[in-house]
Amino acid sequence: MSPTTAEARAVEAANQAFYDAVETSDLDALEAIVLTGPLAESVSVVHPGWPVLRGRREVLRSYALIMASTEYIQFFLTDVEVAVDGDTALVTCTENILTGGPAEEDGSAGSLVGGLVVATNVFRRTPEGWRLWVHHGSPVLADDEESDDGPGAGPGAAGDPDE
Amino acid sequence: MSPTTAEARAVEAANQAFYDAVETSDLDALEAIVLTGPLAESVSVVHPGWPVLRGRREVLRSYALIMASTEYIQFFLTDVEVAVDGDTALVTCTENILTGGPAEEDGSAGSLVGGLVVATNVFRRTPEGWRLWVHHGSPVLADDEESDDGPGAGPGAAGDPDE
Repeated sequence: MSPTTAEARAVEAANQAFYDAVETSDLDALEAIVLTGPLAESVSVVHPGWPVLRGRREVLRSYALIMASTEYIQFFLTDVEVAVDGDTALVTCTENILTGGPAEEDGSAGSLVGGLVVATNVFRRTPEGWRLWVHHGSPVLADDEESDDGPGAGPGAAGDPDE
Repeated sequence: MSPTTAEARAVEAANQAFYDAVETSDLDALEAIVLTGPLAESVSVVHPGWPVLRGRREVLRSYALIMASTEYIQFFLTDVEVAVDGDTALVTCTENILTGGPAEEDGSAGSLVGGLVVATNVFRRTPEGWRLWVHHGSPVLADDEESDDGPGAGPGAAGDPDE
C-alpha cells in the first residue's frame, strides 16, 4: 500500500526529512521536525538496542550525541508504508544504513559498516505540518528479511500452525 | 508522567490485556484487542529482531506461530508511560520477559530464560474501546538500562556535547 494521496505523500516527505536531518547532522532541522506542544513530554525514541528515551529534550540530546560521534551516516529507505487516520500518521520502513567511523590517523576515511534496521515512526498533524511523535528503530536479526513469505520469514519461525 | 486520568488508565488496561493475551496464549483475546476496520491493513508489529509485519492477518498469524512454539512466557511490565491525544494513545514500556522452552524428555520443565525488551505500542480509540494499532518490541543491548541518567545511559554514549 504505497502512499497515493497527497496526505500520505506529505507524511512520507516528513519521514524523509527526519532521516535527511540525521544524515546531514542538522540538529536545527531535526528540532523543526520533532513535535512540540502538549505532547512534547511524550515524544519517544528508541535507537537500535537502546532503552526508551522520553521527552523532546532528552530525544534531541540523544541525537546531538549521535551526530557528534558519527562521522558519516547514510540511510537508504525501503519498504516505506504510510497510513493516515485523522491527525495521526504511521510510517514503517526499513533503514538500510551505511555508517563510517572516525577518519584514520593517516587522514584516510574510516571504515564503512552496513546495517539493517526496521523503524516504526508516528507523526502528528500540526498547523505547521506533520511532526515526529514516535520513532522506534531496531536491528533486524534475521537473514531473510527480503522474503515476502509472511511471518514464517521471521526469526524463530518453525512452521506455520495457523494454516 | 504516570497515567492519572481515567482515559490513560483505560489505555493502560488495554496494554495490559494485550500482554495477558500473549502470556496466556489466548489468540481469541488477542484478536479482540488488535484493531479492525479501515486501519486493519496498516496494523503493524515488530517482534524483537524481526522485520516489520504489516496487516492484521499477518500479525495474528505471527502470534499464532509464537504461541504454538512458546511453552511458557511471562511479562513483567515496568516503566509504563501513557500519553493520550484525541483518538490515539501511545504506550511505552519495558517488557521484563521470562520464557521457557519445551519440557525435557523426562517430563521436567524446560529451562527458563530472561530477556529485556522495550516496546512502543500505539492504540486507537474505537466504539468498543482502545485497540492495538502498532506494536514494536526490540531487545535492549545496553547493560545499564536501569539508569535514569538520560541518553548518556544508552549504548554508544561517549559524552554529552549538548550541555
